[in-house]
Amino acid sequence: MNNKELISSLALKMNLPKTEINNMLQIFTQTCIEQLKEDNTVAFQGFGSLEVRKKDERLSVHPVTKIRTLIPPKLVVCFKQSNVLKEKLNSQPDHE
Amino acid sequence: MNNKELISSLALKMNLPKTEINNMLQIFTQTCIEQLKEDNTVAFQGFGSLEVRKKDERLSVHPVTKIRTLIPPKLVVCFKQSNVLKEKLNSQPDHE
Repeated sequence: MNNKELISSLALKMNLPKTEINNMLQIFTQTCIEQLKEDNTVAFQGFGSLEVRKKDERLSVHPVTKIRTLIPPKLVVCFKQSNVLKEKLNSQPDHE
Repeated sequence: MNNKELISSLALKMNLPKTEINNMLQIFTQTCIEQLKEDNTVAFQGFGSLEVRKKDERLSVHPVTKIRTLIPPKLVVCFKQSNVLKEKLNSQPDHE
């Protein structure tokens, strides 16, 4: 589900125009980004939380050329699912 | 930032009552959960995407008691940050 499909789905469920949903989603993601930049987690009830983790620098070796590259440390946003979401996901029948 | 603080912040920015923001956030997370349960990713423009990954079963050994426990396979929601978010996060001055 891409951003456009998400907006369509939310517009239908909330009975609001797509432009408004788009604006609200942008305010929402901006708010999350502001918090994450300040190293705060953002929690969603019954869903999970977003938090920033620091990945250390590491040495990467190209499997063919054997050229070694130092990958600098970076900040990565991680999602931690809540127990409610974990149960909802894992209660589904396996469709493989 | 917990769920309550998120609602307050969004209510202020969108100039809407908190109850309405709360309802919208619930519709939003429900929509994400529905998609994730069907093994679809959910993408947010300029932010990132949520997707489900399957973790294989593994054997865990308690470091003190040495009791071995088989941890069953489970589904975990992961967040993959977009390049825009990566640049925004990593452009900040290091405050350590």
